[in-house]
Amino acid sequence: MCYTEQVSRARDQRYHEILERAARLIFQRGYEATSMQDIAESCGLTKAGLYHHIKTKEALLLAIMHYGMDLFEDKVLAKVADIADPVARLRETMARNITLVTLDSSKEVTIILHEHQTLTGTSKQEINTRKKRYVGFLESTFRQAVERGLIRPVDPTLAAFSFLGVVLWTYKWYRVDGKIAPQQLSDGMIDLFFEGLMPRA
Amino acid sequence: MCYTEQVSRARDQRYHEILERAARLIFQRGYEATSMQDIAESCGLTKAGLYHHIKTKEALLLAIMHYGMDLFEDKVLAKVADIADPVARLRETMARNITLVTLDSSKEVTIILHEHQTLTGTSKQEINTRKKRYVGFLESTFRQAVERGLIRPVDPTLAAFSFLGVVLWTYKWYRVDGKIAPQQLSDGMIDLFFEGLMPRA
Repeated sequence: MCYTEQVSRARDQRYHEILERAARLIFQRGYEATSMQDIAESCGLTKAGLYHHIKTKEALLLAIMHYGMDLFEDKVLAKVADIADPVARLRETMARNITLVTLDSSKEVTIILHEHQTLTGTSKQEINTRKKRYVGFLESTFRQAVERGLIRPVDPTLAAFSFLGVVLWTYKWYRVDGKIAPQQLSDGMIDLFFEGLMPRA
Repeated sequence: MCYTEQVSRARDQRYHEILERAARLIFQRGYEATSMQDIAESCGLTKAGLYHHIKTKEALLLAIMHYGMDLFEDKVLAKVADIADPVARLRETMARNITLVTLDSSKEVTIILHEHQTLTGTSKQEINTRKKRYVGFLESTFRQAVERGLIRPVDPTLAAFSFLGVVLWTYKWYRVDGKIAPQQLSDGMIDLFFEGLMPRA
């Protein structure tokens, strides 16, 4: 790694740290109730120092959301896109997405994507377009699985959003230090969603 | 119905109307961004008129949440508590809860229960206690169904929150005037959650 690459990586890392800390504060207090001053303090920066990285609170929120989508695409979508069997693809997607919303480093950044509708205009559109790509990926994978007779005939849209409901609701109730271990959570949800509740003959 | 009963019913109705309108505004704009002035205007009241009904914005939020829980207990829990078969009880609970979060009259009031963590101290505790009662009801019904061999062995807590995830995520994506009719949504979700995705032998 050459010197300029090192500098640029360190800068990226610092920037991502700021976004993660800001996300944590916004998640705890709400967007309106969190000031740029609060965020600067939690990053050990002066307000001017924070403004050096990011110009407005709305730009910060947008940056957090793009970072959340980057993480998601990097850690989930990119890792599952090549799985040929649509059912295996869906199972792996669920496992990886659950990890993303329960793991400390990515948790709040990912959560804010689904919590806040504060963005307006083109910012809102940008994020919605990225989110819709995920829904479309799920829908077409469910459709493929139905067409190949691998799963029962289900409405792909209804199945996609039920999948997201199970996975994303997790952050509302799940605590890593509670009675259900992370692996147990992931295995249990996949089993429940794919196999259902009713006993098999 | 005697005269004083009529007066008290009309007063209740007016009060519930205020809570429903306030809930709609808060859901659209966020709690912090909504002022008592905005709420008064949307109810066709002066600010003094609104303060006659309710003293502070936090008291208003608490009243909305209690009203949401009242509606839920009235329209869901009270109607299913006597169903002897735990699986039938769970299915009927899911159907009725989906109706509550998609129907226009109850939608926002119910949503705010799950969106906002703005309450503090004893107010927060009051609402959490009522919410936990629902989770407890679901957990014990899943446990009963497992014990009687009516469903596969699943962790009751994981099952309860997956159930809630499927049902409550609905408000994030579902539109009554979209391509999935309300009855189709409810039937499809119940079928998916109970029967799972994998084909039956």
